[in-house]
Amino acid sequence: MIKKIDHIGIAVHDIEQAIRNYTNLLQAKVIHDEIVPSQHLRAVFIKLAKQKIELLYPLNSNSPVAKFLEKRGEGVHHIAFRTNDIRKEIQRLKKEGYRLIQDEPILGAYNKWVCFLHPKDAQGVLIELCQPRKN
Amino acid sequence: MIKKIDHIGIAVHDIEQAIRNYTNLLQAKVIHDEIVPSQHLRAVFIKLAKQKIELLYPLNSNSPVAKFLEKRGEGVHHIAFRTNDIRKEIQRLKKEGYRLIQDEPILGAYNKWVCFLHPKDAQGVLIELCQPRKN
Repeated sequence: MIKKIDHIGIAVHDIEQAIRNYTNLLQAKVIHDEIVPSQHLRAVFIKLAKQKIELLYPLNSNSPVAKFLEKRGEGVHHIAFRTNDIRKEIQRLKKEGYRLIQDEPILGAYNKWVCFLHPKDAQGVLIELCQPRKN
Repeated sequence: MIKKIDHIGIAVHDIEQAIRNYTNLLQAKVIHDEIVPSQHLRAVFIKLAKQKIELLYPLNSNSPVAKFLEKRGEGVHHIAFRTNDIRKEIQRLKKEGYRLIQDEPILGAYNKWVCFLHPKDAQGVLIELCQPRKN
């Protein structure tokens, strides 16, 4: 089942400026800074209580985030919900008619399993499901 | 100080469709359904753990949400952060150069004190601060 909001992803043009703005605004710290090869981006996480803000900075024009920025400018890119069984959720949502962007989970930031739902089935919002991997 | 994400607001064209999509997607329930006069909108809250998704449906063209929908279509409208001293946060943020849309808190959904920061200082994201009123 879907347990909670894990993080909110925000697409940005200037990552250093974005880090300054958000750490200052929230009086919160960067806890994780990572290159995510599958998405061609740099992901910087700022922690607030048990939630996180993820600043998304594309590394090149192959990143889906580069396309988002070009089309819509800076802003909220996705909302991520945590689940403890992503494959089961994918099956459930498919059965209920939601369109998924990936049929199988892919590896995202924090080496989590992630998959995305099509914004058309969620009022224009890109929804991510994510599940931490057991190591 | 800013404590946590309180909710994420999503602007929608068809509130009944949006309620179906999100309660179904999240397997979660509507916990609050309210007309917010100051914003000319209907706000429907869906609860997930300690967070909420707020579906925002404008009642008429005077609603800021109507303008948002016209300009950008459906999607994430704002992120709301909970604080326990909104006036102090407003002073702090002003001093640090953030532009606020209201100088004084206004009454929002749940009869909370709310104020909004200009998206220009937050990478295109409309940020709400909110504080529950003591009754």
